[in-house]
Amino acid sequence: MRTMTINPDSKFSASWDLIVFISSLYVAITVPLSLVFPNLNPIITMIADSIVTIIFGLDILYNLNLSFQVEGKLVKDRKLIVNHYLRHWFLIDILAFIPFGLILKGLPLFQLGRIIKVLRVVRVLKLIRVIKTIQGEVSQRMNPAILRMIVLLFWFLMVAHFISCAWLAINPNVAGNNEGDKYLYAFYWTITTITTIGYGDITPQTRGQVLFVIIIEILGAAMYGLLIGNIANLIVNIDVAKNQFKERLERVNTFLKYRRIPHKVQRKINDYYQYLWETRRGYEETQVLNDLPEPLKMEVSLYLNMDIIKKVPLFKEASKEFIRDIIVNLLPVVYSPDDYIVKAGELGADMFFISKGSVQVLSPNEQMVYATLTQGQFFGEMALLLSVPRTATIKALEYCDLYRLPKDVFTQVLQRYPDFEQTILQLTKEREEANKMIKKKGKKT
Amino acid sequence: MRTMTINPDSKFSASWDLIVFISSLYVAITVPLSLVFPNLNPIITMIADSIVTIIFGLDILYNLNLSFQVEGKLVKDRKLIVNHYLRHWFLIDILAFIPFGLILKGLPLFQLGRIIKVLRVVRVLKLIRVIKTIQGEVSQRMNPAILRMIVLLFWFLMVAHFISCAWLAINPNVAGNNEGDKYLYAFYWTITTITTIGYGDITPQTRGQVLFVIIIEILGAAMYGLLIGNIANLIVNIDVAKNQFKERLERVNTFLKYRRIPHKVQRKINDYYQYLWETRRGYEETQVLNDLPEPLKMEVSLYLNMDIIKKVPLFKEASKEFIRDIIVNLLPVVYSPDDYIVKAGELGADMFFISKGSVQVLSPNEQMVYATLTQGQFFGEMALLLSVPRTATIKALEYCDLYRLPKDVFTQVLQRYPDFEQTILQLTKEREEANKMIKKKGKKT
Amino acid sequence: MRTMTINPDSKFSASWDLIVFISSLYVAITVPLSLVFPNLNPIITMIADSIVTIIFGLDILYNLNLSFQVEGKLVKDRKLIVNHYLRHWFLIDILAFIPFGLILKGLPLFQLGRIIKVLRVVRVLKLIRVIKTIQGEVSQRMNPAILRMIVLLFWFLMVAHFISCAWLAINPNVAGNNEGDKYLYAFYWTITTITTIGYGDITPQTRGQVLFVIIIEILGAAMYGLLIGNIANLIVNIDVAKNQFKERLERVNTFLKYRRIPHKVQRKINDYYQYLWETRRGYEETQVLNDLPEPLKMEVSLYLNMDIIKKVPLFKEASKEFIRDIIVNLLPVVYSPDDYIVKAGELGADMFFISKGSVQVLSPNEQMVYATLTQGQFFGEMALLLSVPRTATIKALEYCDLYRLPKDVFTQVLQRYPDFEQTILQLTKEREEANKMIKKKGKKT
Amino acid sequence: MRTMTINPDSKFSASWDLIVFISSLYVAITVPLSLVFPNLNPIITMIADSIVTIIFGLDILYNLNLSFQVEGKLVKDRKLIVNHYLRHWFLIDILAFIPFGLILKGLPLFQLGRIIKVLRVVRVLKLIRVIKTIQGEVSQRMNPAILRMIVLLFWFLMVAHFISCAWLAINPNVAGNNEGDKYLYAFYWTITTITTIGYGDITPQTRGQVLFVIIIEILGAAMYGLLIGNIANLIVNIDVAKNQFKERLERVNTFLKYRRIPHKVQRKINDYYQYLWETRRGYEETQVLNDLPEPLKMEVSLYLNMDIIKKVPLFKEASKEFIRDIIVNLLPVVYSPDDYIVKAGELGADMFFISKGSVQVLSPNEQMVYATLTQGQFFGEMALLLSVPRTATIKALEYCDLYRLPKDVFTQVLQRYPDFEQTILQLTKEREEANKMIKKKGKKT
Repeated sequence: MRTMTINPDSKFSASWDLIVFISSLYVAITVPLSLVFPNLNPIITMIADSIVTIIFGLDILYNLNLSFQVEGKLVKDRKLIVNHYLRHWFLIDILAFIPFGLILKGLPLFQLGRIIKVLRVVRVLKLIRVIKTIQGEVSQRMNPAILRMIVLLFWFLMVAHFISCAWLAINPNVAGNNEGDKYLYAFYWTITTITTIGYGDITPQTRGQVLFVIIIEILGAAMYGLLIGNIANLIVNIDVAKNQFKERLERVNTFLKYRRIPHKVQRKINDYYQYLWETRRGYEETQVLNDLPEPLKMEVSLYLNMDIIKKVPLFKEASKEFIRDIIVNLLPVVYSPDDYIVKAGELGADMFFISKGSVQVLSPNEQMVYATLTQGQFFGEMALLLSVPRTATIKALEYCDLYRLPKDVFTQVLQRYPDFEQTILQLTKEREEANKMIKKKGKKT
Repeated sequence: MRTMTINPDSKFSASWDLIVFISSLYVAITVPLSLVFPNLNPIITMIADSIVTIIFGLDILYNLNLSFQVEGKLVKDRKLIVNHYLRHWFLIDILAFIPFGLILKGLPLFQLGRIIKVLRVVRVLKLIRVIKTIQGEVSQRMNPAILRMIVLLFWFLMVAHFISCAWLAINPNVAGNNEGDKYLYAFYWTITTITTIGYGDITPQTRGQVLFVIIIEILGAAMYGLLIGNIANLIVNIDVAKNQFKERLERVNTFLKYRRIPHKVQRKINDYYQYLWETRRGYEETQVLNDLPEPLKMEVSLYLNMDIIKKVPLFKEASKEFIRDIIVNLLPVVYSPDDYIVKAGELGADMFFISKGSVQVLSPNEQMVYATLTQGQFFGEMALLLSVPRTATIKALEYCDLYRLPKDVFTQVLQRYPDFEQTILQLTKEREEANKMIKKKGKKT
Repeated sequence: MRTMTINPDSKFSASWDLIVFISSLYVAITVPLSLVFPNLNPIITMIADSIVTIIFGLDILYNLNLSFQVEGKLVKDRKLIVNHYLRHWFLIDILAFIPFGLILKGLPLFQLGRIIKVLRVVRVLKLIRVIKTIQGEVSQRMNPAILRMIVLLFWFLMVAHFISCAWLAINPNVAGNNEGDKYLYAFYWTITTITTIGYGDITPQTRGQVLFVIIIEILGAAMYGLLIGNIANLIVNIDVAKNQFKERLERVNTFLKYRRIPHKVQRKINDYYQYLWETRRGYEETQVLNDLPEPLKMEVSLYLNMDIIKKVPLFKEASKEFIRDIIVNLLPVVYSPDDYIVKAGELGADMFFISKGSVQVLSPNEQMVYATLTQGQFFGEMALLLSVPRTATIKALEYCDLYRLPKDVFTQVLQRYPDFEQTILQLTKEREEANKMIKKKGKKT
Repeated sequence: MRTMTINPDSKFSASWDLIVFISSLYVAITVPLSLVFPNLNPIITMIADSIVTIIFGLDILYNLNLSFQVEGKLVKDRKLIVNHYLRHWFLIDILAFIPFGLILKGLPLFQLGRIIKVLRVVRVLKLIRVIKTIQGEVSQRMNPAILRMIVLLFWFLMVAHFISCAWLAINPNVAGNNEGDKYLYAFYWTITTITTIGYGDITPQTRGQVLFVIIIEILGAAMYGLLIGNIANLIVNIDVAKNQFKERLERVNTFLKYRRIPHKVQRKINDYYQYLWETRRGYEETQVLNDLPEPLKMEVSLYLNMDIIKKVPLFKEASKEFIRDIIVNLLPVVYSPDDYIVKAGELGADMFFISKGSVQVLSPNEQMVYATLTQGQFFGEMALLLSVPRTATIKALEYCDLYRLPKDVFTQVLQRYPDFEQTILQLTKEREEANKMIKKKGKKT
């Protein structure tokens, strides 16, 4: 039984939702209109009503077979599905399914008819339910702020349509020769009122109309105000990342200006932030990864650095676990063009991996370029073993994203892997002696 | 004397507040109307006025016996209550109590009458006081943002009512055959103006009316604008949790997109956040608990973990204090489906308790399922005693909320309980020897 | 020369600002009016203009003697003051000082007159300058948000006045029999337009009027919208503290609800937050003090705790510096009613000082109340010297603000004062022996 | 080939942008007008159109040679530039370049003409592109919030212009004798409608007009509302620094008020914040620098402190690297007037450098002023070598920005430079002995 349910993420599901949406929209538009203009195209209306009723009926069957997601798990058990459906949308679906229009057509209802006809309005509820469902599904694939704006605008127009129909019902003397004209003028009055423009060329005349206008003014104008307020807010907040970044940039710039930092340095710092924005919307890797739980953080780190670490000869004999531990502890760091990463003569204490950009390996006097290293290469591995001065100067050629492995982190991780520690200690000893040899030779010459 | 006071949280108190609210509302609606239409239902008005006066009188007695809360303590001392009442609402209550209407009815006041009649307006103040009181009491049981919206709308309608009455007073030629109609048209004008729709079908004619309209336009339209602005803001902020969560999710997603993390991992991370949202609205346990003071934090932690900890055989002989110290130091951690929690062969350093979800205990080659552990169970307790490799792989079957107890935390707590430390050390020795035996056997076979 | 300058914080300064404000307001109101109605009260106008001119002249002298504040220092040097004044407001002051009205009265200016008369408008600039000055001074004594709202409303009304005068100038056919009526109608039209109500009973007729109305519609309505938007925002942000606190409370409550913490504990936690709000608007002492630089932080801490610390017999012989170091390191902590602060039998490691509230000292079985300690008292000082179990249970009777002094902090501070360290070590030894004696006795009995 | 490209930051580039902007603006204004009033100044129009066409053509050539910036690098490679241009703005530029107006003039197009004429509207797109380009360039030199406000207002007026032209096209009976008058009235109607004022003196008459008005009411009024909402928000957020600072200040003040800190201390704390605001907009140096990556942080720190550190005799023989390490570890600290920085008799553990302000060196009894130190001077260097009591009291005379170098930081850095460490140890020994001598002498006398 389990495998027979419908997956809400499937294409079939999406297509069906679209069909039901169009049907509901048709119902929501025509039902109020048919109450005001009862003699509009009786045959077409009947056919369309029948189709819609069938679609709504099939939709109930569809929902009885539709899996749903809860706490990351897809529920496929039929019993749970039925239960879930009955407690949520079933009532609205069944009410919308009843073809009041068709039923009433067949019955001779004199005075009572008008009142019962209004029952058809419950079919409009279906639209609310369909929009909710679609919204839930689309929200993961679309900017939710933009989605919300679209939904708000859609409802604004629907409500304006309902108000127009009500105004037509209450005010039969609306200008216009035919139904179309009358509706146009009613819609014009509605929009003029709820946008608070209020030309005043159409005003209420009878007591009932005055009462109706009061309600529309309070609710309609409030709705419009809220809509505008909401959209204004959405526009402002649509790019939270940018706002936060601008704030941060302004903080730094205010400080630089007040402390009279030279213009050249200010420019360099601004360029750095520009780079940060273009490459990662200003978000720091460390900050983002720390928000993830340990296993996911590791998964992302592994993806980012596995390739480069594997290449390091030093780690050739290391176990998978050791390499994983190293990767999780790498520190991302950004260098601007011409920044010194390593200076010849300094005591080194870090190894570096180039994730992006290129660096130059220079002679201590910076006259000679030994090499240019780029993405996927590394340098300074000697510093993990010995405390010797750097033998070359390394300078960033452009903006570089490096990962830094400090010696103490390396040593700490190493202690958890006694076997590999022995290998490394052996290597260190060999290097140390080689070093001494070089020094001696150096002294001799 | 102390026990005779009324508890403001009691049902009686709530009912009485409702009665006083209805009376005040009746007064606030009828007093301005009766000033404009003096000849409206004299007998009914008199009876209603008398009842209201009695209720307002009883309300003063009620307040003289009403306890009040301050800094977490309920003050029941009569003297303090009276003092508190006199300094707060007494003046308004006594002013609202005076039945100006009834008094004036009995006295022959010719010209002076009109002016004194206006004094009745002070009774309207009672409504402000009642709303304030109810708001204070309801605010703890209701979303304060929604409460504030309701109160704002209520006052908006009340003010519109007052403006309509004033317009009627200043403009006796308002259209309409009877009092009802006249009021309806005045109300229609008010709403049309303060919603800034301004049809212009009713405009001021005399100098006084122009002045009145200027004031209403400035204050009324401003009020409406502020109301809309406030509500728009409330809507935006009604779900702070969701906004913050969306921001956080967007930050992570932007980073993942910019660093080109594989789609599968992105999906997994989004599912994780979805789980975080569904189970705890995105709030991390550690973060929330750290906002509490030590004793409350402990109380919550104890409730969450006491049952599970008590079951651990290792802690059978531990004192209550020791267990409490352990619980407060547990670290919550979430695993996604198929995440490895423990890998066979690794050196273990944590014990785990399952708070929610289920995990599988697998053979090192993951071919055999030894067991499935669920909510309330635990694993890895050996790691607290010995530094031996894990003997089985443990994998999350679904989203799991675990609590982690790191070995160093355990050791640290242990040092504070020398007696239990001895027991544990003894146990460790036994296990170590047992382990050696197993190893030897393993080697032999 | 230095002491002769005027202090901007003096009462004289405040009174003078008020006089200049009233004069400027008079000018700002009458100058545009006199341009539209040239024949209004010529004698009174002349006298008033003369007085204003004198006041404006004196104001220039006043400013040449007015000290000003910069980076926390009051500048009293005349030369600097003059320099500062010339670079800031002098130009506006001198322009406003010139009595265009009086000068023009004396001269026969035919056609040219009208144009030159408009020059009088520059006097209105004085109002801008005066408002700015007063705003700067008042801002420290008043909620800046409320001040800003008042200033915004004031300018809104002033601008409406200017627009009304301009409308009168451009549209001489405004309804109304006399100047007062005409102005009233013009003002009515202005407000109706810029609040976007737009009745449409007064509309532009000539080309110039249409152009004028377009400008007013764009600028005036925008101004009104911005005013409302700004005020709505001010209202929302007027109580930042409350908003942040509500957010925090909601975070905790959401968590408690989702983790199904018992209702009793939830209630207790909410009461705690209520207490935090009532006693300190939700702000934590540690967080606030850490925002201050070291010397100010110490000053506040000393004020809060000096009295209580001095009373401790243990610190009788300590130097002032030692006590200061202790006070700065106290940790504030809040206990709810019935919370255990100390439990008999536990190893103690903290001393406590009661800053607010009262606690009960109970026998280990909680049957007997040994004592009730309140504000200004302390307990647990033995824990600073010896690692012995607590001899009594101590329980909070109501909400208590305590300061905690952990043993390790005490020891650390002690090391910086070798002399006092000796005294304490001596004391410790004595106590230890006394303790042993008690134990022995205990065993014997 | 590389050096022949145009730098987008050059003055030539800025001038050319201005020329293209003016041409686009001319096109955007005249094209819709010429559709409504076809017979307007045919000769002038033709000449202007020709010039604009030439400029638009040259602009395409210009863009084919224009370098562009990406991730901090200026791309100068012609091939990449062309590629980049083709994928971005080329299509709009080429469409705007086609002189539809001139082409159509030459051809006899009867009925078809009207429709084809509308094609000219595509030239208006050029304006969008030009504004975008200028916005991107100006955004770095201007407050982005203000820039955005200006752009919004500009587009608001442009859209109002387009709506006016459309209204003229749809409603030929607009009042007015000539083209200018007709346009004025149309613009007046547009503004009256989209500011939601809606006088109602001009209302739609035909079905087409009603439809047009409905659309304008929805879009135009929404546009206006969003514009106002956006600007209100921009105004509120224009000074993020101030808002955050006010919040912080309020937090402190609320705390001080609730804990009843003496008024004098409250005043002192407020003065401190005032100083913080005036000198650095409330931003803390540490916080700002920590947002920068290591190399940029060092560059700023070096600039701020290099001069002062070099002067210290103690560091005369130190290497450049050592001094750099010291500078990066200095801690900024602010003292208020009359704060004690160092007290005679205390054990010193910090050296201080004065970055701003002045301090007094006083005798232990504060009766004698030994010296006044100001910006660029330092004191307390002895504390880095020996643990001896301070020999003088040092007090801030005004607000002082100092940098503090704690002894332990100094020692830590020293360990990385063994050679210099020897020098310092030697010095310490000498000083110690000198100290002993002084003490002996002191005892003798």
